[in-house]
Amino acid sequence: MDYYSSQISRLIEQLSGLPGIGPKSAQRLAFHILNMPEENVEKLSRSILDARQNIHYCKECLTLTDDELCPICKNPQRDHSVIMVVEDTRDLAAYEKTGKYEGVYHVLHGAISPMLGIGPNDIKLKELIHRLEGDVREVIIATNSSLEGETTAMYISKLVKPTGIKVSRIASGVPVGGDLEYIDEVTLLRALEGRVEL
Amino acid sequence: MDYYSSQISRLIEQLSGLPGIGPKSAQRLAFHILNMPEENVEKLSRSILDARQNIHYCKECLTLTDDELCPICKNPQRDHSVIMVVEDTRDLAAYEKTGKYEGVYHVLHGAISPMLGIGPNDIKLKELIHRLEGDVREVIIATNSSLEGETTAMYISKLVKPTGIKVSRIASGVPVGGDLEYIDEVTLLRALEGRVEL
Repeated sequence: MDYYSSQISRLIEQLSGLPGIGPKSAQRLAFHILNMPEENVEKLSRSILDARQNIHYCKECLTLTDDELCPICKNPQRDHSVIMVVEDTRDLAAYEKTGKYEGVYHVLHGAISPMLGIGPNDIKLKELIHRLEGDVREVIIATNSSLEGETTAMYISKLVKPTGIKVSRIASGVPVGGDLEYIDEVTLLRALEGRVEL
Repeated sequence: MDYYSSQISRLIEQLSGLPGIGPKSAQRLAFHILNMPEENVEKLSRSILDARQNIHYCKECLTLTDDELCPICKNPQRDHSVIMVVEDTRDLAAYEKTGKYEGVYHVLHGAISPMLGIGPNDIKLKELIHRLEGDVREVIIATNSSLEGETTAMYISKLVKPTGIKVSRIASGVPVGGDLEYIDEVTLLRALEGRVEL
């Protein structure tokens, strides 16, 4: 890339290291940035560094936050006796968007995967068990519906059951608006097994 | 986005302002950045700001560069009497990748577009005319093959012709490897008009 000056090349190189950004997009982004007003570029650059330097795990639920406790754990309106266990902060955000869940969360930061060599000690399970010593009514397992997510769900349910706390798993089934014709057989079978009386 | 802490929200917001990055990708990028080693994030943040603060137009060809002259204009091996006129720095890069062009460039930073209200004075045409006073043999017009690119090409050729300097336009035609069946009629007609004797 010696037809670009070194600073442009460096910027393109840095940008193409990000996920989902190939060399063409990196080039397009770089030129967009070069044409942005300087104060906006300063804001972008600062927000990247600030976020990285000030973000850590919430002391309670382990989601990523810039305070000791995340906005959800800090909120006294939430039901702190119901814990939804998710794989990562984005899954938490997905449930928050529904606006209907009133409990709190626990972020595992991963899922058990024997294939990738990720065991129970590599995700935030100890922290979950520790939380169960408090006043907890129900643990809702909302790990993904993948092999890893299911394995993790099974593992957690076995850990929680002896404590007498209620454990539940979010339902698998046909997505709302989904056309049966295009849905895989495993999902169809799950939907059948999980049928509810009307 | 109050389920994310303010610094994460700010980062997602900043990233989703970039072209081709929707809210979902911005979220994915943000979490990737939060999980990157801190020194890499510093590098990314710095390269964004550095590039923007130190990049300006090459004094000669007006491409974006961090020096007074870009690497191409500085190179005595290049033929400075042949100028290829392109719309932007990325087009220059596209031709440089071929590794076969030995002349220099002139970057217009746009194309004439009556529709968007971009006239000849809004692109770097005056600077091109000024360069023609030097020792120039040929001007190769390599603006895009769009309506704007063609309009700009016509305009430039009219400007250059009275000076007696040779003006040429890159060929339009069927792309190499292109299947005739899938090529639009205008391109097919251009390819016919531009046929070369074998």
